[in-house]
Amino acid sequence: MPRFLKPMDATRGRPPGSLVFVGEQRVESPSIRIIHYDAESIDERELGTLEGVECCREAPAVTWVNVDGLHDVELMGKVRDAFGLHPLVMEDVLDTGQRPKLAEFDGCLALTAKMLRLVPEDDTVHAEQLSLVLGRNWLLTFQELPGDVFDPVRERLRRNRGRIRKLGADYLAYALLDVVMENYLRVLTHLGEHIESLEEVVLLTPTPGILESITGFKMELGYIRKAARPTRDFIQALSHLDTEFVSDDLAPFLRDLYDLSEHVNEAIDAYSAMLSDYIAIYNSNVGNRLNDIMKFLTMFSSIFIPLAFIAGVYGMNFDNIPELHYRYGYFVFWGLIVLVVLGMLRFFRSKGWL
Amino acid sequence: MPRFLKPMDATRGRPPGSLVFVGEQRVESPSIRIIHYDAESIDERELGTLEGVECCREAPAVTWVNVDGLHDVELMGKVRDAFGLHPLVMEDVLDTGQRPKLAEFDGCLALTAKMLRLVPEDDTVHAEQLSLVLGRNWLLTFQELPGDVFDPVRERLRRNRGRIRKLGADYLAYALLDVVMENYLRVLTHLGEHIESLEEVVLLTPTPGILESITGFKMELGYIRKAARPTRDFIQALSHLDTEFVSDDLAPFLRDLYDLSEHVNEAIDAYSAMLSDYIAIYNSNVGNRLNDIMKFLTMFSSIFIPLAFIAGVYGMNFDNIPELHYRYGYFVFWGLIVLVVLGMLRFFRSKGWL
Amino acid sequence: MPRFLKPMDATRGRPPGSLVFVGEQRVESPSIRIIHYDAESIDERELGTLEGVECCREAPAVTWVNVDGLHDVELMGKVRDAFGLHPLVMEDVLDTGQRPKLAEFDGCLALTAKMLRLVPEDDTVHAEQLSLVLGRNWLLTFQELPGDVFDPVRERLRRNRGRIRKLGADYLAYALLDVVMENYLRVLTHLGEHIESLEEVVLLTPTPGILESITGFKMELGYIRKAARPTRDFIQALSHLDTEFVSDDLAPFLRDLYDLSEHVNEAIDAYSAMLSDYIAIYNSNVGNRLNDIMKFLTMFSSIFIPLAFIAGVYGMNFDNIPELHYRYGYFVFWGLIVLVVLGMLRFFRSKGWL
Amino acid sequence: MPRFLKPMDATRGRPPGSLVFVGEQRVESPSIRIIHYDAESIDERELGTLEGVECCREAPAVTWVNVDGLHDVELMGKVRDAFGLHPLVMEDVLDTGQRPKLAEFDGCLALTAKMLRLVPEDDTVHAEQLSLVLGRNWLLTFQELPGDVFDPVRERLRRNRGRIRKLGADYLAYALLDVVMENYLRVLTHLGEHIESLEEVVLLTPTPGILESITGFKMELGYIRKAARPTRDFIQALSHLDTEFVSDDLAPFLRDLYDLSEHVNEAIDAYSAMLSDYIAIYNSNVGNRLNDIMKFLTMFSSIFIPLAFIAGVYGMNFDNIPELHYRYGYFVFWGLIVLVVLGMLRFFRSKGWL
Amino acid sequence: MPRFLKPMDATRGRPPGSLVFVGEQRVESPSIRIIHYDAESIDERELGTLEGVECCREAPAVTWVNVDGLHDVELMGKVRDAFGLHPLVMEDVLDTGQRPKLAEFDGCLALTAKMLRLVPEDDTVHAEQLSLVLGRNWLLTFQELPGDVFDPVRERLRRNRGRIRKLGADYLAYALLDVVMENYLRVLTHLGEHIESLEEVVLLTPTPGILESITGFKMELGYIRKAARPTRDFIQALSHLDTEFVSDDLAPFLRDLYDLSEHVNEAIDAYSAMLSDYIAIYNSNVGNRLNDIMKFLTMFSSIFIPLAFIAGVYGMNFDNIPELHYRYGYFVFWGLIVLVVLGMLRFFRSKGWL
Ligand SMILES: [Mg+2]
Ligand SMILES: [Mg+2]
Ligand SMILES: [Mg+2]
Ligand SMILES: [Mg+2]
Ligand SMILES: [Mg+2]
Ligand SMILES: [Mg+2]
Ligand SMILES: [Mg+2]
Ligand SMILES: [Mg+2]
Ligand SMILES: [Mg+2]
Ligand SMILES: [Mg+2]
Ligand SMILES: [Mg+2]
Ligand SMILES: [Mg+2]
Ligand SMILES: [Mg+2]
Ligand SMILES: [Mg+2]
Ligand SMILES: [Mg+2]
Ligand SMILES: [Mg+2]
Ligand SMILES: [Mg+2]
Ligand SMILES: [Mg+2]
Ligand SMILES: [Mg+2]
Ligand SMILES: [Mg+2]
Ligand SMILES: [Mg+2]
Ligand SMILES: [Mg+2]
Ligand SMILES: [Mg+2]
Ligand SMILES: [Mg+2]
Ligand SMILES: [Mg+2]
Ligand SMILES: [Mg+2]
Ligand SMILES: [Mg+2]
Ligand SMILES: [Mg+2]
Ligand SMILES: [Mg+2]
Ligand SMILES: [Mg+2]
Ligand SMILES: [Mg+2]
Repeated sequence: MPRFLKPMDATRGRPPGSLVFVGEQRVESPSIRIIHYDAESIDERELGTLEGVECCREAPAVTWVNVDGLHDVELMGKVRDAFGLHPLVMEDVLDTGQRPKLAEFDGCLALTAKMLRLVPEDDTVHAEQLSLVLGRNWLLTFQELPGDVFDPVRERLRRNRGRIRKLGADYLAYALLDVVMENYLRVLTHLGEHIESLEEVVLLTPTPGILESITGFKMELGYIRKAARPTRDFIQALSHLDTEFVSDDLAPFLRDLYDLSEHVNEAIDAYSAMLSDYIAIYNSNVGNRLNDIMKFLTMFSSIFIPLAFIAGVYGMNFDNIPELHYRYGYFVFWGLIVLVVLGMLRFFRSKGWL
Repeated sequence: MPRFLKPMDATRGRPPGSLVFVGEQRVESPSIRIIHYDAESIDERELGTLEGVECCREAPAVTWVNVDGLHDVELMGKVRDAFGLHPLVMEDVLDTGQRPKLAEFDGCLALTAKMLRLVPEDDTVHAEQLSLVLGRNWLLTFQELPGDVFDPVRERLRRNRGRIRKLGADYLAYALLDVVMENYLRVLTHLGEHIESLEEVVLLTPTPGILESITGFKMELGYIRKAARPTRDFIQALSHLDTEFVSDDLAPFLRDLYDLSEHVNEAIDAYSAMLSDYIAIYNSNVGNRLNDIMKFLTMFSSIFIPLAFIAGVYGMNFDNIPELHYRYGYFVFWGLIVLVVLGMLRFFRSKGWL
Repeated sequence: MPRFLKPMDATRGRPPGSLVFVGEQRVESPSIRIIHYDAESIDERELGTLEGVECCREAPAVTWVNVDGLHDVELMGKVRDAFGLHPLVMEDVLDTGQRPKLAEFDGCLALTAKMLRLVPEDDTVHAEQLSLVLGRNWLLTFQELPGDVFDPVRERLRRNRGRIRKLGADYLAYALLDVVMENYLRVLTHLGEHIESLEEVVLLTPTPGILESITGFKMELGYIRKAARPTRDFIQALSHLDTEFVSDDLAPFLRDLYDLSEHVNEAIDAYSAMLSDYIAIYNSNVGNRLNDIMKFLTMFSSIFIPLAFIAGVYGMNFDNIPELHYRYGYFVFWGLIVLVVLGMLRFFRSKGWL
Repeated sequence: MPRFLKPMDATRGRPPGSLVFVGEQRVESPSIRIIHYDAESIDERELGTLEGVECCREAPAVTWVNVDGLHDVELMGKVRDAFGLHPLVMEDVLDTGQRPKLAEFDGCLALTAKMLRLVPEDDTVHAEQLSLVLGRNWLLTFQELPGDVFDPVRERLRRNRGRIRKLGADYLAYALLDVVMENYLRVLTHLGEHIESLEEVVLLTPTPGILESITGFKMELGYIRKAARPTRDFIQALSHLDTEFVSDDLAPFLRDLYDLSEHVNEAIDAYSAMLSDYIAIYNSNVGNRLNDIMKFLTMFSSIFIPLAFIAGVYGMNFDNIPELHYRYGYFVFWGLIVLVVLGMLRFFRSKGWL
Repeated sequence: MPRFLKPMDATRGRPPGSLVFVGEQRVESPSIRIIHYDAESIDERELGTLEGVECCREAPAVTWVNVDGLHDVELMGKVRDAFGLHPLVMEDVLDTGQRPKLAEFDGCLALTAKMLRLVPEDDTVHAEQLSLVLGRNWLLTFQELPGDVFDPVRERLRRNRGRIRKLGADYLAYALLDVVMENYLRVLTHLGEHIESLEEVVLLTPTPGILESITGFKMELGYIRKAARPTRDFIQALSHLDTEFVSDDLAPFLRDLYDLSEHVNEAIDAYSAMLSDYIAIYNSNVGNRLNDIMKFLTMFSSIFIPLAFIAGVYGMNFDNIPELHYRYGYFVFWGLIVLVVLGMLRFFRSKGWL
């Protein structure tokens, strides 16, 4: 299956806004976690249905509904109806091949991003689509799979650290995106260590296999760039958006988040440039090595070819070859050999090949 | 005939707006299909003339006129007159070498695109020019050939699924463009599977023929990009257009369509980059292979050349070569040979060639 | 003489706006052709002087004055005075090394373009500078040489075809530029056929000479791009210009012309990219060919070098070489040779060289 | 540790605006230097605490507080409180992996830059993060380490040279940034001397090691570009900022500073282009050298291989080889050898290889 | 000394606006030339001091003060005071490493450019910094060295040719910049002749030395581009500037000058592209040549190696080699040799190597 494109067949030609899950079904049953908080109190529930969510929609406190697993189309329809979402919002949530984007609708802002998570145990990076739908005082987040990078935010909510409990759903959305981008940086730091450790190999002991490693890293960076660049773009757009869903107090935080996302993109570009340099050095090294081999072959054969000729001459069977009958002819032959060798070596030194 | 340019001779120097069909005549006789619908009823007719179309122009219901085959210039003149089109509109419709574009006129919006259609039976992609002319409550579509990607939209119209029957001709135009772009993605998915399957060949068993395949895919992507980029551009322009022919309710749908077209263009770029990487890897592999060959040749000749010299020495006919008369001279010779071989092998290992 | 720059010495340091002809004098005596027309009548004269032109300047009908040949500075001064042109206008007309541009003045719009004309008889492209000076109801065109691409427009004027006789001098200027751009496309179509016919040569039987052809086409495309890109830019500028010399009715025609010029530029870029691909394939082919040659040399010498050694061994003159006296020693030798050859071939197959 | 990314673990997931030092702790204890001045008087103090700083905040004179060393989080908290800074300001100051940027807050402007300092003694460049926080009449500067490029500014303050004592804190900030950018230029001048001295080596005696040098300089320039480009960008932004913290009188100075930063960036690009040219020349030289070696090998073996064959022929043991019994056969053989050699040399000259 | 950067040490850390000459002192004593003119009269003086210049500042006539030589800092201070210039203006004048730029100040416009002058006698190009400071009715020009390209303008002033004496100081500044840009074109024409003469060498008889020439021209073009690009940019800025120092009548002249500067930049880019093409062709030629050499070596050794083996076989000393005793064995041997040679030649032709 192609890496860069989602399988289209499920939605192709359907009415825009139909609910069809486009992706691989990987979760047994979807899980819903609702956190309801204001500056004074917090209430956290984990359930499989949506009972009582509608009331939250109009309450003054903030409600964060997180859904892990997207394949239960019926449940998704209920979420859509409970929060009065435009049909296109839910279509995007269910289509896990979306490029990161921001879309404004009557009643909500919809954000799509890719969430990267480094799993140190097995040295892999987990990637999944994260959708955020931001209303006046509620935030819906949708993930393909259980497991995310939000635990620090949940801890801050529970322990009432920082300003998170005092501010609205927009700040919560910012805090989640901030932690998402921090994890991009963490993944890049990890990838960067691998990449930089290649440098020595490239410079000192280049093997053909290294090209495969370099190409592999290049494709991984390409994948991350495809996620990080439009994310940066929509964060910038978010700063300039004239919308009721984002309060003005968020401005400095969004600018800070934009700087972080710019930093992420610059790091991607820097590592990509580094990999391109590696390839250039590797190719140059291959050229140098070929030169070394050819130099050796040339010098070696150029020394022995005339020697072999001389030996051949005195192996001829002419009746009359005077040298053959000299008393020390054989020893003079060896002297001649030594002279030829010395002469060739001198010539090679003059060429700078030695 | 060049691939990138249409034959110009038919229109060259004619008054702008003349009706001349520029393309290859590939259809027996043009076929016209008219679908007339509103929220309550739908009426579908397939005919060869335009009888009674003019009346639709002013009716409150929506009329979709699709024309397959463009070579009947007289019929085209009638269509132009029936809908009061600017002469340049029809000139563009008839010129199948147009680049995708959007043009505003008094009385209509004209859109030109390329329609790609994957035909799985013979694993080919059919491409033809699609022109859309959008009026207040009517939409004209012109194709070079019968066969298109619109059947899902026709089904939705007939079965009254989604909101298509409730909305106007602008939504119909959007729905058609949406299905066109979805088919770009489908074609790219298919192409991408072919491209990605090349990777293994490039890395493991590169043959000169693979360069031809890579170049072929590059040219196909180049062709699709030439169609997809200006299409994306006019979709964006369409979102910002201040026109009576597109209602405000279409805005979220057009933004969604723009995201899709951006996705298409990113996929094209990603696959192109992949192909460029393949070429770089292939060239590196050629260099590596040359190195391997030279290494082998160098080691092989460097071992045998001195051996041949030694054998030559003892084939000489000097009267006085003491070694020849030793009892075990021949066996000592073989010992010397073994020593030289071992010495050379050791030297090569020190060079890192073994 | 350099291809990209005009000889400057004639104008260098003169007061801006002086009349000096900068170019090569290639015409015997300049010829002037005046076409005076309105919707009802047309009057066409060819002469060497400007008698009676001034009166046309204020008449309601349209006057088109075409001048072939620019070296008669005195005559040019008269034209300037007859139409009251700014001194810089005429300086640009006379300087045939101008880059295409649009300049607004009090009393006129000045346009400079390059006119390309395919001459099929000798398979060449003629290029010359074309200047258009557009007033309220008159248009001046200046060419370096007799011969142009305007005959279809003259025919339309004479036969009163299309809307040309009904509209003003601005539409005439548009019609001329349209036919100029159509001829760019025609030249590119012709060039493109040559370029595409190179593909097979590059893929199948690359010769060093092909690199020269590719470079030659690249330079020709570079030359055309240098003319076509600023032309497209000024056509776009013309669409947005707020000027009395271009009526609003021209807007759709100018947009159509802009699309044509964009098409021209995209074709140039597409063919340039194709040529770059050819070079890359050619270089890869050279590498492959080198590989093939080296593979052959390596296998060939690797088979014969040990054989020659064995023959050398049994050509030695040691007193005591037991094998030499075996009855079938010579035939065993040939058996050994066959074994070595088979072994080497097997080895090469294992390397993938066969 | 990766070169391009800071270690994130300390801040990851903390509430935005928390005080955590992200960097390497390199100073024993932070040192604070306060300069308090107006046109008439100047007062300079160096201390370890912040006693009495708060009062400065509202005084009409200018107060410059410089802090060397960032790891004392408690002290930083006091600075933040004394000047009423937004929490995000201090977070950025403490995170030494920031990209250069400008951020507006209520009550202050925060600028982050990298300070480069050439240390001639050991031919190294010291780099550290410099943060400037500009209030109405005070300026805070934060450095990672003692030692900076500000001594000339301090001298001007002490000796009351130029206009620095007459103008406000904004001019002081400008003066510091100016001296920072001048030191970029100084570092580049120094780097440039090294780079330009490579040219001769590349052209005349290229060694594989030179590729490593070139790559090293490329990475250093890449590092400086990563600091210099966003710095230029924020200097431009500063010129256009509508803020109470920068007076209008600063405009020409900021434009001058922008020109300097543009000059710095152009120098980086020029040197980078120079290094790329070096690599291209080096690779071409490798190709030339390979050609020279192959030419020699080819000519040398092509001369001796037929000679060896001829000698081999007359070493054969056929009963009946008439030449062997000619009186001067051996000398005719040598004549043949000379003829073959002369013929080969002539052939090589005709090929242009000699 | 680095080519791309000025030595900074003289100004580093000084108060912005201090008068320090940054450059090489190359003139004995500065010379001042004052031309004072209006439509009726002209007065030209050459002197070493500034006596009586102040009065000109307010006169209705135009005053042009040209200063050759910048190292007399005291004199420069007097000029500054006489015309009331902002300190930064004079700092830029004295710093000859400025990049071309335009700066607005109260009381004047300051322009910095590089002046190129082709000296045909010794086939070199002289480059120096030219500063123009434009007031209401006066123009100051500063050069590093005597000798410039302004003589045609001086002649026009003296002979009252064109409109120069009738217009103000702004037209004079335009006329000088126009003649400066014309000389860029003249230098490029000259350089272009050299560059184009390389083409034949590259295609027909490439030598390693040519790479050095190409690189040299590339660096010269890079130097000119560094001067020409920002000059074009400030000419464009000048056209759009809302300033009292440039009258509206200058608009068409500035547009014409902008076109000229765009032409200069396009010529630089075109020649740079040409040089890049040369390098690509040169590298391809090196590859072709290597191929030719390898083909020859391979064919030559592949023909002789089996021959030598056959001769070796019949040089063996086996007791029992029947062929040796055939009557015509030796002649059959030669027949075999001929067959082998013909077979090899046929094989090579089948490979396309002959
Ligand atoms: Mg859809
Ligand atoms: Mg969607
Ligand atoms: Mg995507
Ligand atoms: Mg890992
Ligand atoms: Mg998850
Ligand atoms: Mg993107
Ligand atoms: Mg046309
Ligand atoms: Mg058209
Ligand atoms: Mg096109
Ligand atoms: Mg297929
Ligand atoms: Mg069709
Ligand atoms: Mg396009
Ligand atoms: Mg001029
Ligand atoms: Mg001009
Ligand atoms: Mg040009
Ligand atoms: Mg032709
Ligand atoms: Mg002509
Ligand atoms: Mg251009
Ligand atoms: Mg290469
Ligand atoms: Mg943070
Ligand atoms: Mg921050
Ligand atoms: Mg950074
Ligand atoms: Mg150093
Ligand atoms: Mg420091
Ligand atoms: Mg940057
Ligand atoms: Mg300074
Ligand atoms: Mg300055
Ligand atoms: Mg510069
Ligand atoms: Mg010269
Ligand atoms: Mg001078
Ligand atoms: Mg520049």
